[in-house]
Amino acid sequence: MLLVKLGGSVVTNKEKLKAARPFAITRLAKEIAVAREDVILVHGAGSFGHIKAKKYGLQNGYSKESQLQGVAEVQEDVRSLNLHIMQALREAGSRPVSIPPGVIVRFKGGALSSMQIEPFHEYLALHMMPVTFGDVVLDSEWRFAICSGDDLMLELSKAFSPRKCLFVADVDGIFTGDPKGRKKHTLLGKMSGKDVDKVNLAVRKGVDVTGGIEGKLTKMLKAAEFAGECWILNGLVPGRLRDALLGRRFIGTKVVS
Amino acid sequence: MLLVKLGGSVVTNKEKLKAARPFAITRLAKEIAVAREDVILVHGAGSFGHIKAKKYGLQNGYSKESQLQGVAEVQEDVRSLNLHIMQALREAGSRPVSIPPGVIVRFKGGALSSMQIEPFHEYLALHMMPVTFGDVVLDSEWRFAICSGDDLMLELSKAFSPRKCLFVADVDGIFTGDPKGRKKHTLLGKMSGKDVDKVNLAVRKGVDVTGGIEGKLTKMLKAAEFAGECWILNGLVPGRLRDALLGRRFIGTKVVS
Repeated sequence: MLLVKLGGSVVTNKEKLKAARPFAITRLAKEIAVAREDVILVHGAGSFGHIKAKKYGLQNGYSKESQLQGVAEVQEDVRSLNLHIMQALREAGSRPVSIPPGVIVRFKGGALSSMQIEPFHEYLALHMMPVTFGDVVLDSEWRFAICSGDDLMLELSKAFSPRKCLFVADVDGIFTGDPKGRKKHTLLGKMSGKDVDKVNLAVRKGVDVTGGIEGKLTKMLKAAEFAGECWILNGLVPGRLRDALLGRRFIGTKVVS
Repeated sequence: MLLVKLGGSVVTNKEKLKAARPFAITRLAKEIAVAREDVILVHGAGSFGHIKAKKYGLQNGYSKESQLQGVAEVQEDVRSLNLHIMQALREAGSRPVSIPPGVIVRFKGGALSSMQIEPFHEYLALHMMPVTFGDVVLDSEWRFAICSGDDLMLELSKAFSPRKCLFVADVDGIFTGDPKGRKKHTLLGKMSGKDVDKVNLAVRKGVDVTGGIEGKLTKMLKAAEFAGECWILNGLVPGRLRDALLGRRFIGTKVVS
Protein backbone atom coordinates (compact mmCIF):
# COMPACT_ATOMS: atom_id res chain seq x y z
CA MET A 1 0.00 0.00 0.00
CA LEU A 2 1.18 3.51 -0.85
CA LEU A 3 0.38 6.49 1.33
CA VAL A 4 0.69 9.83 -0.46
CA LYS A 5 0.28 13.37 0.81
CA LEU A 6 -0.10 16.26 -1.61
CA GLY A 7 1.03 19.25 0.45
CA GLY A 8 -1.12 22.37 0.59
CA SER A 9 1.69 24.31 -1.13
CA VAL A 10 1.54 21.93 -4.11
CA VAL A 11 -2.21 21.90 -4.70
CA THR A 12 -2.74 25.58 -3.86
CA ASN A 13 -0.95 28.90 -3.90
CA LYS A 14 -0.61 29.31 -0.13
CA GLU A 15 -0.30 33.09 -0.32
CA LYS A 16 -3.60 33.70 -2.11
CA LEU A 17 -7.02 32.89 -0.61
CA LYS A 18 -8.65 29.83 -2.19
CA ALA A 19 -6.26 29.69 -5.14
CA ALA A 20 -5.98 26.12 -6.38
CA ARG A 21 -3.19 25.08 -8.74
CA PRO A 22 -5.38 23.39 -11.37
CA PHE A 23 -2.53 22.33 -13.67
CA ALA A 24 -0.47 20.80 -10.87
CA ILE A 25 -3.58 18.99 -9.57
CA THR A 26 -4.44 17.58 -13.01
CA ARG A 27 -0.86 16.43 -13.62
CA LEU A 28 -0.41 14.89 -10.17
CA ALA A 29 -3.75 13.08 -10.52
CA LYS A 30 -2.42 11.50 -13.71
CA GLU A 31 0.85 10.53 -12.00
CA ILE A 32 -1.11 8.90 -9.16
CA ALA A 33 -3.34 7.00 -11.59
CA VAL A 34 -0.39 4.95 -12.87
CA ALA A 35 0.37 3.43 -9.43
CA ARG A 36 0.14 -0.36 -9.47
CA GLU A 37 -0.74 -0.72 -5.78
CA ASP A 38 -3.51 0.51 -3.51
CA VAL A 39 -3.16 4.21 -2.72
CA ILE A 40 -4.54 6.24 0.17
CA LEU A 41 -4.32 9.94 -0.61
CA VAL A 42 -4.10 12.83 1.84
CA HIS A 43 -4.05 16.46 0.78
CA GLY A 44 -3.37 19.65 2.64
CA ALA A 45 -5.82 22.55 2.85
CA GLY A 46 -3.36 25.21 1.68
CA SER A 47 -4.94 28.59 1.11
CA PHE A 48 -8.44 27.02 1.35
CA GLY A 49 -7.81 26.44 5.04
CA HIS A 50 -4.97 28.27 6.73
CA ILE A 51 -5.83 31.86 5.86
CA LYS A 52 -9.40 31.88 7.20
CA ALA A 53 -8.49 29.51 10.07
CA LYS A 54 -6.04 32.18 11.19
CA LYS A 55 -8.54 35.00 10.61
CA TYR A 56 -11.06 33.27 12.91
CA GLY A 57 -8.33 32.08 15.32
CA LEU A 58 -9.43 28.46 14.99
CA GLN A 59 -5.97 26.98 15.67
CA ASN A 60 -6.33 27.16 19.46
CA GLY A 61 -9.92 25.96 19.68
CA TYR A 62 -13.08 27.66 20.89
CA SER A 63 -12.92 31.07 22.52
CA LYS A 64 -16.05 32.79 21.21
CA GLU A 65 -19.34 32.07 19.46
CA SER A 66 -18.46 33.98 16.30
CA GLN A 67 -15.74 31.42 15.48
CA LEU A 68 -18.42 28.85 14.65
CA GLN A 69 -19.25 30.69 11.44
CA GLY A 70 -15.55 30.29 10.67
CA VAL A 71 -15.67 26.55 11.38
CA ALA A 72 -18.52 26.20 8.86
CA GLU A 73 -16.74 28.43 6.36
CA VAL A 74 -13.37 26.67 6.52
CA GLN A 75 -14.97 23.21 6.36
CA GLU A 76 -16.88 24.36 3.27
CA ASP A 77 -13.77 25.83 1.65
CA VAL A 78 -11.60 22.75 2.17
CA ARG A 79 -14.42 20.60 0.78
CA SER A 80 -14.47 22.74 -2.35
CA LEU A 81 -10.71 22.11 -2.77
CA ASN A 82 -11.29 18.42 -2.06
CA LEU A 83 -14.03 18.28 -4.70
CA HIS A 84 -11.67 19.81 -7.25
CA ILE A 85 -9.02 17.18 -6.46
CA MET A 86 -11.59 14.34 -6.48
CA GLN A 87 -12.71 15.35 -9.95
CA ALA A 88 -9.13 15.44 -11.26
CA LEU A 89 -8.41 12.00 -9.76
CA ARG A 90 -11.56 10.50 -11.26
CA GLU A 91 -10.93 12.06 -14.67
CA ALA A 92 -7.41 10.58 -14.58
CA GLY A 93 -8.99 7.12 -14.19
CA SER A 94 -8.89 6.57 -10.41
CA ARG A 95 -11.96 5.82 -8.29
CA PRO A 96 -11.58 8.24 -5.40
CA VAL A 97 -13.86 8.35 -2.35
CA SER A 98 -13.80 11.31 0.03
CA ILE A 99 -13.47 10.62 3.77
CA PRO A 100 -13.68 13.92 5.69
CA PRO A 101 -11.82 14.19 9.02
CA GLY A 102 -14.61 16.46 10.33
CA VAL A 103 -16.66 13.27 10.70
CA ILE A 104 -14.12 10.51 11.47
CA VAL A 105 -11.36 12.21 13.49
CA ARG A 106 -11.52 13.40 17.10
CA PHE A 107 -8.97 15.61 18.81
CA LYS A 108 -8.37 16.20 22.51
CA GLY A 109 -6.65 19.43 23.57
CA GLY A 110 -5.26 20.06 20.10
CA ALA A 111 -3.88 16.57 19.44
CA LEU A 112 -5.42 13.68 17.54
CA SER A 113 -7.08 11.24 19.96
CA SER A 114 -8.96 8.90 17.60
CA MET A 115 -9.58 8.23 13.93
CA GLN A 116 -11.96 5.73 12.35
CA ILE A 117 -9.94 3.46 10.10
CA GLU A 118 -12.78 1.15 8.94
CA PRO A 119 -13.97 3.40 6.09
CA PHE A 120 -10.44 3.30 4.59
CA HIS A 121 -10.31 -0.50 4.85
CA GLU A 122 -13.80 -0.92 3.43
CA TYR A 123 -13.33 1.36 0.42
CA LEU A 124 -9.91 -0.18 -0.31
CA ALA A 125 -11.62 -3.60 -0.27
CA LEU A 126 -13.99 -2.19 -2.91
CA HIS A 127 -10.92 -1.22 -4.99
CA MET A 128 -11.53 2.48 -4.52
CA MET A 129 -9.04 5.15 -3.41
CA PRO A 130 -9.75 6.77 -0.03
CA VAL A 131 -8.94 10.48 -0.01
CA THR A 132 -8.79 12.58 3.15
CA PHE A 133 -7.56 16.11 3.85
CA GLY A 134 -6.67 18.83 6.34
CA ASP A 135 -9.89 19.91 8.07
CA VAL A 136 -11.54 21.45 11.14
CA VAL A 137 -12.46 18.61 13.52
CA LEU A 138 -14.22 18.14 16.86
CA ASP A 139 -12.06 18.39 19.99
CA SER A 140 -13.31 17.01 23.32
CA GLU A 141 -11.52 19.77 25.29
CA TRP A 142 -11.14 22.67 22.86
CA ARG A 143 -14.53 21.97 21.16
CA PHE A 144 -12.84 22.14 17.73
CA ALA A 145 -9.28 21.99 16.40
CA ILE A 146 -7.31 21.94 13.15
CA CYS A 147 -6.34 18.51 11.88
CA SER A 148 -3.43 18.77 9.42
CA GLY A 149 -2.59 16.51 6.52
CA ASP A 150 0.51 15.49 8.50
CA ASP A 151 -1.61 14.36 11.47
CA LEU A 152 -3.54 12.16 9.04
CA MET A 153 -0.34 10.79 7.45
CA LEU A 154 1.00 9.75 10.84
CA GLU A 155 -2.24 8.05 11.86
CA LEU A 156 -2.68 6.26 8.52
CA SER A 157 0.95 5.17 8.54
CA LYS A 158 0.40 3.62 12.00
CA ALA A 159 -2.78 1.90 10.85
CA PHE A 160 -1.63 0.58 7.46
CA SER A 161 2.20 0.23 7.67
CA PRO A 162 2.43 1.41 4.04
CA ARG A 163 5.22 0.13 1.83
CA LYS A 164 5.93 3.75 0.92
CA CYS A 165 4.96 6.98 2.59
CA LEU A 166 5.40 9.97 0.25
CA PHE A 167 5.22 13.61 1.32
CA VAL A 168 4.83 15.67 -1.85
CA ALA A 169 6.06 19.23 -1.27
CA ASP A 170 6.97 22.32 -3.33
CA VAL A 171 10.69 21.82 -2.70
CA ASP A 172 13.05 19.00 -3.66
CA GLY A 173 13.32 17.72 -0.09
CA ILE A 174 15.01 18.74 3.15
CA PHE A 175 17.86 21.24 2.90
CA THR A 176 20.59 22.45 5.22
CA GLY A 177 19.59 26.00 4.23
CA ASP A 178 16.67 27.84 2.60
CA PRO A 179 16.48 26.42 -0.97
CA LYS A 180 14.82 29.62 -2.12
CA GLY A 181 17.31 31.90 -0.37
CA ARG A 182 20.67 33.21 -1.61
CA LYS A 183 22.93 31.43 0.83
CA LYS A 184 24.49 28.08 0.13
CA HIS A 185 22.16 25.17 0.71
CA THR A 186 22.40 21.43 0.24
CA LEU A 187 19.71 18.85 -0.38
CA LEU A 188 19.97 16.05 2.13
CA GLY A 189 19.71 12.59 0.61
CA LYS A 190 18.63 11.28 3.95
CA MET A 191 17.31 12.83 7.14
CA SER A 192 16.90 11.27 10.56
CA GLY A 193 15.88 12.58 13.97
CA LYS A 194 19.45 13.63 14.80
CA ASP A 195 19.55 15.90 11.73
CA VAL A 196 16.53 17.98 12.75
CA ASP A 197 18.60 20.66 14.47
CA LYS A 198 20.82 21.32 11.50
CA VAL A 199 18.16 21.32 8.79
CA ASN A 200 16.24 24.34 7.75
CA LEU A 201 13.27 23.39 5.63
CA ALA A 202 12.23 25.99 3.11
CA VAL A 203 10.62 28.82 5.01
CA ARG A 204 7.72 29.38 2.73
CA LYS A 205 5.72 32.54 2.60
CA GLY A 206 2.05 32.39 3.48
CA VAL A 207 0.18 31.24 6.53
CA ASP A 208 0.35 27.90 8.29
CA VAL A 209 -1.80 27.22 11.35
CA THR A 210 -0.72 23.64 11.91
CA GLY A 211 2.41 23.92 13.97
CA GLY A 212 5.13 25.00 11.55
CA ILE A 213 8.22 23.18 10.37
CA GLU A 214 9.22 21.49 13.64
CA GLY A 215 5.82 19.87 14.09
CA LYS A 216 5.88 18.80 10.45
CA LEU A 217 9.31 17.13 10.69
CA THR A 218 8.39 15.42 13.95
CA LYS A 219 5.28 13.89 12.35
CA MET A 220 7.20 12.81 9.24
CA LEU A 221 9.87 11.13 11.34
CA LYS A 222 7.21 9.39 13.39
CA ALA A 223 5.29 8.31 10.25
CA ALA A 224 8.55 6.89 8.86
CA GLU A 225 8.72 4.47 11.82
CA PHE A 226 5.66 2.62 10.52
CA ALA A 227 6.40 2.77 6.77
CA GLY A 228 8.71 0.64 4.65
CA GLU A 229 10.18 3.83 3.19
CA CYS A 230 9.36 7.48 3.74
CA TRP A 231 10.28 10.32 1.37
CA ILE A 232 9.85 14.03 0.83
CA LEU A 233 9.84 14.99 -2.85
CA ASN A 234 8.97 17.86 -5.14
CA GLY A 235 5.50 17.63 -6.69
CA LEU A 236 5.99 20.73 -8.82
CA VAL A 237 8.55 18.87 -10.95
CA PRO A 238 6.66 16.68 -13.45
CA GLY A 239 7.29 12.95 -13.13
CA ARG A 240 8.86 12.81 -9.67
CA LEU A 241 5.78 11.49 -7.91
CA ARG A 242 5.15 9.00 -10.72
CA ASP A 243 8.75 7.75 -10.49
CA ALA A 244 8.47 7.42 -6.71
CA LEU A 245 5.21 5.48 -7.01
CA LEU A 246 6.60 3.14 -9.65
CA GLY A 247 9.84 2.42 -7.76
CA ARG A 248 12.08 4.29 -10.22
CA ARG A 249 14.93 6.57 -9.15
CA PHE A 250 13.91 10.11 -8.20
CA ILE A 251 15.28 13.16 -6.41
CA GLY A 252 14.11 13.60 -2.82
CA THR A 253 15.05 13.24 0.83
CA LYS A 254 14.58 9.88 2.49
CA VAL A 255 13.22 10.24 6.00
CA VAL A 256 14.66 7.66 8.36
CA SER A 257 13.16 7.15 11.79
CA MET B 1 -35.46 19.67 17.52
CA LEU B 2 -36.68 20.05 13.95
CA LEU B 3 -35.88 17.50 11.25
CA VAL B 4 -36.23 18.84 7.72
CA LYS B 5 -35.83 17.15 4.37
CA LEU B 6 -35.50 19.15 1.19
CA GLY B 7 -36.63 16.73 -1.50
CA GLY B 8 -34.49 16.21 -4.60
CA SER B 9 -37.32 17.63 -6.71
CA VAL B 10 -37.19 20.90 -4.75
CA VAL B 11 -33.43 21.51 -4.80
CA THR B 12 -32.93 20.21 -8.37
CA ASN B 13 -34.74 19.81 -11.65
CA LYS B 14 -35.05 16.03 -11.58
CA GLU B 15 -35.38 15.72 -15.34
CA LYS B 16 -32.09 17.43 -16.21
CA LEU B 17 -28.66 16.07 -15.22
CA LYS B 18 -27.01 18.04 -12.42
CA ALA B 19 -29.43 20.96 -12.63
CA ALA B 20 -29.69 22.66 -9.24
CA ARG B 21 -32.50 25.12 -8.51
CA PRO B 22 -30.33 27.97 -7.18
CA PHE B 23 -33.19 30.36 -6.41
CA ALA B 24 -35.22 27.76 -4.51
CA ILE B 25 -32.09 26.73 -2.57
CA THR B 26 -31.25 30.31 -1.62
CA ARG B 27 -34.83 31.05 -0.54
CA LEU B 28 -35.24 27.83 1.44
CA ALA B 29 -31.87 28.42 3.16
CA LYS B 30 -33.23 31.79 4.34
CA GLU B 31 -36.49 30.20 5.55
CA ILE B 32 -34.50 27.61 7.51
CA ALA B 33 -32.26 30.28 9.06
CA VAL B 34 -35.23 31.79 10.96
CA ALA B 35 -35.96 28.57 12.92
CA ARG B 36 -35.69 29.11 16.67
CA GLU B 37 -34.78 25.50 17.48
CA ASP B 38 -32.00 23.09 16.54
CA VAL B 39 -32.36 21.84 12.97
CA ILE B 40 -30.97 18.72 11.31
CA LEU B 41 -31.24 19.02 7.56
CA VAL B 42 -31.44 16.21 5.00
CA HIS B 43 -31.53 16.79 1.27
CA GLY B 44 -32.21 14.53 -1.66
CA ALA B 45 -29.77 13.97 -4.52
CA GLY B 46 -32.26 14.76 -7.28
CA SER B 47 -30.70 14.92 -10.73
CA PHE B 48 -27.19 14.90 -9.17
CA GLY B 49 -27.78 11.31 -8.12
CA HIS B 50 -30.62 9.38 -9.68
CA ILE B 51 -29.80 9.79 -13.37
CA LYS B 52 -26.21 8.47 -13.22
CA ALA B 53 -27.08 5.92 -10.52
CA LYS B 54 -29.54 4.46 -13.00
CA LYS B 55 -27.07 4.69 -15.89
CA TYR B 56 -24.53 2.64 -13.89
CA GLY B 57 -27.23 0.38 -12.38
CA LEU B 58 -26.11 1.20 -8.83
CA GLN B 59 -29.55 0.67 -7.25
CA ASN B 60 -29.17 -3.09 -6.95
CA GLY B 61 -25.56 -3.13 -5.75
CA TYR B 62 -22.40 -4.53 -7.30
CA SER B 63 -22.57 -6.58 -10.47
CA LYS B 64 -19.47 -5.50 -12.38
CA GLU B 65 -16.18 -3.66 -11.90
CA SER B 66 -17.11 -0.76 -14.20
CA GLN B 67 -19.81 0.36 -11.76
CA LEU B 68 -17.14 1.53 -9.33
CA GLN B 69 -16.33 4.48 -11.58
CA GLY B 70 -20.04 5.28 -11.25
CA VAL B 71 -19.89 5.06 -7.45
CA ALA B 72 -17.06 7.62 -7.45
CA GLU B 73 -18.87 9.80 -9.98
CA VAL B 74 -22.22 9.84 -8.19
CA GLN B 75 -20.60 10.46 -4.80
CA GLU B 76 -18.72 13.38 -6.34
CA ASP B 77 -21.85 14.79 -7.98
CA VAL B 78 -24.00 14.66 -4.83
CA ARG B 79 -21.17 16.32 -2.91
CA SER B 80 -21.17 19.16 -5.44
CA LEU B 81 -24.92 19.63 -4.85
CA ASN B 82 -24.32 19.41 -1.10
CA LEU B 83 -21.59 22.06 -1.31
CA HIS B 84 -23.98 24.37 -3.15
CA ILE B 85 -26.61 23.92 -0.42
CA MET B 86 -24.02 24.32 2.38
CA GLN B 87 -22.93 27.63 0.92
CA ALA B 88 -26.53 28.90 0.69
CA LEU B 89 -27.22 27.85 4.30
CA ARG B 90 -24.07 29.56 5.56
CA GLU B 91 -24.73 32.73 3.59
CA ALA B 92 -28.24 32.80 5.09
CA GLY B 93 -26.64 32.88 8.56
CA SER B 94 -26.71 29.20 9.59
CA ARG B 95 -23.61 27.22 10.58
CA PRO B 96 -23.99 24.03 8.57
CA VAL B 97 -21.68 21.02 8.83
CA SER B 98 -21.75 18.27 6.20
CA ILE B 99 -22.04 14.65 7.38
CA PRO B 100 -21.83 12.32 4.35
CA PRO B 101 -23.66 8.97 4.52
CA GLY B 102 -20.88 7.41 2.42
CA VAL B 103 -18.80 7.46 5.61
CA ILE B 104 -21.31 7.03 8.47
CA VAL B 105 -24.07 4.80 7.07
CA ARG B 106 -23.89 1.06 6.36
CA PHE B 107 -26.45 -0.95 4.40
CA LYS B 108 -27.04 -4.69 4.29
CA GLY B 109 -28.77 -6.18 1.25
CA GLY B 110 -30.18 -2.82 0.18
CA ALA B 111 -31.54 -1.72 3.57
CA LEU B 112 -29.99 0.54 6.17
CA SER B 113 -28.31 -1.52 8.90
CA SER B 114 -26.42 1.13 10.90
CA MET B 115 -25.82 4.86 11.08
CA GLN B 116 -23.44 6.76 13.34
CA ILE B 117 -25.47 9.26 15.31
CA GLU B 118 -22.62 10.73 17.43
CA PRO B 119 -21.47 13.30 14.82
CA PHE B 120 -25.02 14.75 14.75
CA HIS B 121 -25.11 14.99 18.55
CA GLU B 122 -21.64 16.48 18.76
CA TYR B 123 -22.14 19.17 16.12
CA LEU B 124 -25.56 20.07 17.58
CA ALA B 125 -23.84 20.49 20.96
CA LEU B 126 -21.49 22.94 19.21
CA HIS B 127 -24.58 24.86 18.00
CA MET B 128 -24.00 23.91 14.39
CA MET B 129 -26.49 22.46 11.89
CA PRO B 130 -25.77 18.89 10.73
CA VAL B 131 -26.59 18.38 7.05
CA THR B 132 -26.75 14.98 5.39
CA PHE B 133 -27.98 13.82 1.99
CA GLY B 134 -28.87 10.98 -0.39
CA ASP B 135 -25.64 9.15 -1.26
CA VAL B 136 -23.98 5.93 -2.40
CA VAL B 137 -23.01 3.94 0.71
CA LEU B 138 -21.23 0.70 1.60
CA ASP B 139 -23.38 -2.45 1.77
CA SER B 140 -22.09 -5.57 3.57
CA GLU B 141 -23.88 -7.89 1.11
CA TRP B 142 -24.30 -5.86 -2.08
CA ARG B 143 -20.92 -4.06 -1.64
CA PHE B 144 -22.65 -0.69 -2.24
CA ALA B 145 -26.21 0.63 -2.24
CA ILE B 146 -28.20 3.83 -2.60
CA CYS B 147 -29.16 5.54 0.66
CA SER B 148 -32.08 7.92 0.10
CA GLY B 149 -32.94 11.07 1.98
CA ASP B 150 -36.02 9.23 3.26
CA ASP B 151 -33.86 6.44 4.74
CA LEU B 152 -31.94 9.14 6.60
CA MET B 153 -35.14 10.88 7.78
CA LEU B 154 -36.45 7.65 9.26
CA GLU B 155 -33.19 6.88 11.05
CA LEU B 156 -32.76 10.42 12.38
CA SER B 157 -36.39 10.52 13.50
CA LYS B 158 -35.80 7.30 15.48
CA ALA B 159 -32.62 8.69 17.01
CA PHE B 160 -33.79 12.21 17.90
CA SER B 161 -37.61 12.03 18.30
CA PRO B 162 -37.90 15.47 16.65
CA ARG B 163 -40.69 17.81 17.66
CA LYS B 164 -41.43 18.22 13.97
CA CYS B 165 -40.47 16.17 10.97
CA LEU B 166 -40.94 18.09 7.70
CA PHE B 167 -40.77 16.56 4.23
CA VAL B 168 -40.41 19.44 1.78
CA ALA B 169 -41.67 18.40 -1.67
CA ASP B 170 -42.61 20.05 -4.99
CA VAL B 171 -46.34 19.45 -4.39
CA ASP B 172 -48.68 20.76 -1.69
CA GLY B 173 -48.91 17.38 0.03
CA ILE B 174 -50.60 14.03 -0.56
CA PHE B 175 -53.44 13.95 -3.04
CA THR B 176 -56.15 11.49 -3.93
CA GLY B 177 -55.21 12.02 -7.58
CA ASP B 178 -52.33 13.42 -9.64
CA PRO B 179 -52.15 17.14 -8.68
CA LYS B 180 -50.51 17.90 -12.01
CA GLY B 181 -53.00 15.84 -14.02
CA ARG B 182 -56.36 16.86 -15.49
CA LYS B 183 -58.60 14.67 -13.37
CA LYS B 184 -60.15 15.80 -10.11
CA HIS B 185 -57.80 15.59 -7.18
CA THR B 186 -58.02 16.53 -3.53
CA LEU B 187 -55.31 17.50 -1.07
CA LEU B 188 -55.53 15.35 2.03
CA GLY B 189 -55.26 17.31 5.27
CA LYS B 190 -54.14 14.16 6.99
CA MET B 191 -52.82 10.82 5.84
CA SER B 192 -52.37 7.62 7.83
CA GLY B 193 -51.33 4.08 6.95
CA LYS B 194 -54.89 3.11 6.03
CA ASP B 195 -55.01 5.86 3.38
CA VAL B 196 -52.01 4.60 1.43
CA ASP B 197 -54.09 2.52 -0.98
CA LYS B 198 -56.32 5.39 -2.01
CA VAL B 199 -53.69 8.09 -2.37
CA ASN B 200 -51.80 8.77 -5.53
CA LEU B 201 -48.84 11.00 -4.86
CA ALA B 202 -47.83 13.18 -7.76
CA VAL B 203 -46.22 10.92 -10.31
CA ARG B 204 -43.35 13.14 -11.22
CA LYS B 205 -41.36 12.86 -14.39
CA GLY B 206 -37.70 12.03 -14.11
CA VAL B 207 -35.80 9.16 -12.61
CA ASP B 208 -35.95 7.85 -9.06
CA VAL B 209 -33.78 4.92 -8.01
CA THR B 210 -34.81 4.81 -4.37
CA GLY B 211 -37.93 2.71 -4.37
CA GLY B 212 -40.66 4.95 -5.73
CA ILE B 213 -43.74 6.35 -4.06
CA GLU B 214 -44.73 3.31 -1.98
CA GLY B 215 -41.30 3.08 -0.33
CA LYS B 216 -41.39 6.83 0.27
CA LEU B 217 -44.80 6.77 1.98
CA THR B 218 -43.85 3.77 4.08
CA LYS B 219 -40.74 5.59 5.37
CA MET B 220 -42.68 8.80 6.05
CA LEU B 221 -45.34 6.91 8.02
CA LYS B 222 -42.63 5.12 10.00
CA ALA B 223 -40.74 8.39 10.64
CA ALA B 224 -44.00 9.92 11.90
CA GLU B 225 -44.12 7.30 14.68
CA PHE B 226 -41.06 8.86 16.33
CA ALA B 227 -41.83 12.54 15.70
CA GLY B 228 -44.15 14.92 17.54
CA GLU B 229 -45.66 15.93 14.21
CA CYS B 230 -44.86 14.93 10.65
CA TRP B 231 -45.81 16.90 7.54
CA ILE B 232 -45.41 16.96 3.79
CA LEU B 233 -45.44 20.49 2.38
CA ASN B 234 -44.60 22.39 -0.78
CA GLY B 235 -41.16 23.99 -0.78
CA LEU B 236 -41.67 25.70 -4.13
CA VAL B 237 -44.25 28.03 -2.53
CA PRO B 238 -42.36 30.81 -0.71
CA GLY B 239 -42.94 30.96 3.05
CA ARG B 240 -44.50 27.54 3.64
CA LEU B 241 -41.40 25.98 5.16
CA ARG B 242 -40.77 29.10 7.26
CA ASP B 243 -44.36 29.00 8.55
CA ALA B 244 -44.05 25.30 9.37
CA LEU B 245 -40.77 25.87 11.23
CA LEU B 246 -42.17 28.80 13.23
CA GLY B 247 -45.38 26.99 14.21
CA ARG B 248 -47.64 29.18 12.04
CA ARG B 249 -50.51 27.81 9.93
CA PHE B 250 -49.50 26.40 6.56
CA ILE B 251 -50.89 24.24 3.77
CA GLY B 252 -49.70 20.63 3.77
CA THR B 253 -50.60 17.04 4.61
CA LYS B 254 -50.11 15.83 8.15
CA VAL B 255 -48.71 12.30 8.24
CA VAL B 256 -50.12 10.29 11.11
CA SER B 257 -48.58 6.96 12.05
